[in-house]
Amino acid sequence: MKIGFIGLGAMGSAMASVLVKAGHEVTVWNRSPQAAQPLAELGARVAATPAEAAAGAEAVLSMLANDQAVREALLAGGVLEAMPKGAVHVNHATISMALVGELVRLHEAHGLGYVAAPVFGRPPVAAEGKLTIAVGGRPAAVAKVQALLDALGAKVWPAGDKPENAAIVKIAGNFMIAAAIESMAEATTLTRAYGVSAADFIGLMGSTLFAAPIYQNYGKLIAEERFSPPGFALALGHKDIGLGLAAGEAARVPMPFAGVLRDNLLEAIAAGAGELDLSALAQVAARRARLDER
Amino acid sequence: MKIGFIGLGAMGSAMASVLVKAGHEVTVWNRSPQAAQPLAELGARVAATPAEAAAGAEAVLSMLANDQAVREALLAGGVLEAMPKGAVHVNHATISMALVGELVRLHEAHGLGYVAAPVFGRPPVAAEGKLTIAVGGRPAAVAKVQALLDALGAKVWPAGDKPENAAIVKIAGNFMIAAAIESMAEATTLTRAYGVSAADFIGLMGSTLFAAPIYQNYGKLIAEERFSPPGFALALGHKDIGLGLAAGEAARVPMPFAGVLRDNLLEAIAAGAGELDLSALAQVAARRARLDER
Amino acid sequence: MKIGFIGLGAMGSAMASVLVKAGHEVTVWNRSPQAAQPLAELGARVAATPAEAAAGAEAVLSMLANDQAVREALLAGGVLEAMPKGAVHVNHATISMALVGELVRLHEAHGLGYVAAPVFGRPPVAAEGKLTIAVGGRPAAVAKVQALLDALGAKVWPAGDKPENAAIVKIAGNFMIAAAIESMAEATTLTRAYGVSAADFIGLMGSTLFAAPIYQNYGKLIAEERFSPPGFALALGHKDIGLGLAAGEAARVPMPFAGVLRDNLLEAIAAGAGELDLSALAQVAARRARLDER
Amino acid sequence: MKIGFIGLGAMGSAMASVLVKAGHEVTVWNRSPQAAQPLAELGARVAATPAEAAAGAEAVLSMLANDQAVREALLAGGVLEAMPKGAVHVNHATISMALVGELVRLHEAHGLGYVAAPVFGRPPVAAEGKLTIAVGGRPAAVAKVQALLDALGAKVWPAGDKPENAAIVKIAGNFMIAAAIESMAEATTLTRAYGVSAADFIGLMGSTLFAAPIYQNYGKLIAEERFSPPGFALALGHKDIGLGLAAGEAARVPMPFAGVLRDNLLEAIAAGAGELDLSALAQVAARRARLDER
Repeated sequence: MKIGFIGLGAMGSAMASVLVKAGHEVTVWNRSPQAAQPLAELGARVAATPAEAAAGAEAVLSMLANDQAVREALLAGGVLEAMPKGAVHVNHATISMALVGELVRLHEAHGLGYVAAPVFGRPPVAAEGKLTIAVGGRPAAVAKVQALLDALGAKVWPAGDKPENAAIVKIAGNFMIAAAIESMAEATTLTRAYGVSAADFIGLMGSTLFAAPIYQNYGKLIAEERFSPPGFALALGHKDIGLGLAAGEAARVPMPFAGVLRDNLLEAIAAGAGELDLSALAQVAARRARLDER
Repeated sequence: MKIGFIGLGAMGSAMASVLVKAGHEVTVWNRSPQAAQPLAELGARVAATPAEAAAGAEAVLSMLANDQAVREALLAGGVLEAMPKGAVHVNHATISMALVGELVRLHEAHGLGYVAAPVFGRPPVAAEGKLTIAVGGRPAAVAKVQALLDALGAKVWPAGDKPENAAIVKIAGNFMIAAAIESMAEATTLTRAYGVSAADFIGLMGSTLFAAPIYQNYGKLIAEERFSPPGFALALGHKDIGLGLAAGEAARVPMPFAGVLRDNLLEAIAAGAGELDLSALAQVAARRARLDER
Repeated sequence: MKIGFIGLGAMGSAMASVLVKAGHEVTVWNRSPQAAQPLAELGARVAATPAEAAAGAEAVLSMLANDQAVREALLAGGVLEAMPKGAVHVNHATISMALVGELVRLHEAHGLGYVAAPVFGRPPVAAEGKLTIAVGGRPAAVAKVQALLDALGAKVWPAGDKPENAAIVKIAGNFMIAAAIESMAEATTLTRAYGVSAADFIGLMGSTLFAAPIYQNYGKLIAEERFSPPGFALALGHKDIGLGLAAGEAARVPMPFAGVLRDNLLEAIAAGAGELDLSALAQVAARRARLDER
Repeated sequence: MKIGFIGLGAMGSAMASVLVKAGHEVTVWNRSPQAAQPLAELGARVAATPAEAAAGAEAVLSMLANDQAVREALLAGGVLEAMPKGAVHVNHATISMALVGELVRLHEAHGLGYVAAPVFGRPPVAAEGKLTIAVGGRPAAVAKVQALLDALGAKVWPAGDKPENAAIVKIAGNFMIAAAIESMAEATTLTRAYGVSAADFIGLMGSTLFAAPIYQNYGKLIAEERFSPPGFALALGHKDIGLGLAAGEAARVPMPFAGVLRDNLLEAIAAGAGELDLSALAQVAARRARLDER
């Protein structure tokens, strides 16, 4: 299939490479052009502008960092005007519900399909085509890109007929991840104060009641206090909680855990931990209890 | 081994039956005597008082509901006076850290061993001897009851040389369970407001990032709004969060998630949900957002 | 002085009337023109557009509802282009810190003075020229409009050399008002549960330790459950807490009380109380405790 | 009147001296006897035990620090047994609602009157007989001690026919004080981050909307960061919030502001601020935002 791929961060690069290897005709674009080099070597064409990547494509996939990047690359970049009528845009980014609504209207106005397909998983998982992908959009639009999604994901999960359905699943899921980390942060601070190490406590929990990847992976980082390099930066987690609170705000859904997370993440950022791993949230709980001075 | 077993609720009965079947000489006591009948049929002796159950036992195991029950059955019941010097008391109950400290001192004064061995697991799991058990106490005392613990648990986990080490693991673990439920409550309220059902959302999370028993089991109850009969009563969960907050208070560990849980559980109890399952915490989040009126 | 006045809600109308009566040459504009009628009868000129109100004015005062109204009336309305170079814009609205920063840059680019002058007080107070006004801006700009501010306020308080200084004072002050209401809400729910009425409790507090207007006025509304008509609508209070949280976010200031307020106000709005008085926040606390069912 | 007075801390000493000067026949007792010396010089008799102070008294007044002190001095001290039948005990201490209930039952069993009369005010105010006193108890019991209360208080406020009515008023009032301090802490942290000093902001608020003693007095301490010597120790404020949470717990009243206060006060205590003034709560907010590093 003739594809445009916009946004070549760690995740986007891995995803685009999967599509190139699967034999699709992929034209890529990235704000800083050097990120396109490895893709070019795999056989992708490199576009000079987002619009050029989109021109003539049956499907445009984008993996951008946040609302602002979407506005700049896609909207200011002229992607919607460049895409052929009837083509489908698959947005993999985690963005605000407000922007999702705006994009739905804009794509409709341009005669384009719009599919929200946010992903769960890290770059190595993406490179293997093993992501978990929540997919929301009109069945006809989804059908056109189903093969691409199947190439990218081990689990392609239909969230509903609206892009909003998939977007909220990602926002709610990221909230649950941060909440799991905070619960480990408070729990291990408590056990440490009574003589049980975080490694021991999380070792038990992560092998029994909480034997799930989130607890095992983030728990290990907390236990080892290994917050750098970040797998997922704390500042991004803070942004995502903001998306959750804003989504709750718009739909009148109070979220007290999200409010606590917001404040604790903000405190971590004020302390200089924004570029550490999200699990550095555990530093806040430990510092409040002055564990290190005991 | 000659054993006294005190407290025959659903959990205690299941655990005592495992020990009887394993060939131990078990004398049981329960406040309401009818609960002892099935054990008697299996071959246990039935004592008329807690002290009688403890007299001559090498080990006394107790599984009581809360601090008050421990004070009444064990302390007022004369168990410590009745136990032979050098015998070991294994306390399976979830009790306050303050009472743990008091019991440590009392057992020492009576020349008795004291092992805290709180358990994770429901009655059917207990009946199969497959509990997860955190064990804290002096190595010599633990050694004397190791065979009993191995009979009761699939995972017998050494928490440390002090009973406090095991007690805090149970309190912290129960806090994490309640936090996981609240995070699902808020997340599903949010997704429902945007058109994704709790069943769908939890189905995805519970089979990927959160593929752990806690999320799967409680998540199913939330999705099906099946809060009765309770697997674990909400009022007990509220009591356990109180134990966590008190433990944090005594050790100067702030716990903002626990504070939110306290209030939400209290709101649930005020609304009459104390005897529903702990997962009924999800009703609070949904009611605040008036989901049912949409 | 030749003045343009933009925005004739209850507050703006009262303030504009003070200036007309003080002998200034005032041209007014409002989105819905009928609000200008009473001013016209007092001697004001009525402009057809915001730009017309601003044309030739030495000072333009604006009292608009929120960020959006400022963007529409002032920015889209061409006010900055219409004002003579060197003229001063006095903004009385409570707006986001982000928009304050944007307005500072825009006025500078247009060669205009910019003074933030948010007010505390209700319409009857405004009509008497007895407002409390926090004033922020360059001394030269403030000096040009000092006489106008003195006519409007009983207390004209210099907050600093930057418009941001005054803007944050208003946002922080409104947060404190909402916090005072929530503290009365929780306290009276507690006393009522133990047999002391809200009227009695607030009567004591408001005449002793908390003998201040905020506690007396809002306290009276809480005690009498008289939430309609609103003196200050709950939905506006919710908006203001959002401004506080956003200001804290941008400056990395965690605000846990503001987070609680956000959720409680959102719950009130979900329950249909958005157009009631801000003191209806007390309904949330009472409802959670099911006071009415006791 | 023949009076026993038990507990001669700063408050108790000041109150007892008022009664001696008013001509009453006062026998005092204090745990550390040296505190009784100044009272003896004023003409009070000094008892060797609490029971001796109570023997033969028409009224016993007590001003003790907390639940534990009440249990030790009054209950273990044999005061109820020593008091003549029909005499009245006036309890000025701030104690738990659970202990209030217990004392009500005990006094009734001993044929004694029981009046709860918690006070608002600092020692210098007490020495002038200008306290605010909430009074709860049976009218007949209150009538017997009305003259004493009138001597001690500028405002003697009837809270209801039950001691609980007065006790909850004190607990709720102390909660409101701590909430006012936290709201100033967050608000001034925010304004400082935008260039407005705490002194300036609180100066404005305390002279307008919040022109009440609590805001003015604690606000001044916050602005001057003058947290030592303590007027009211932070650790006591923490204890009082615990009483409020426990009272809410027993009556099923969620109190989210109290939960935040609990955590923030605990964090302050962990940081070593327990013996500073309650207003040192402001250090927590400032430290979280790292204001001092900007």
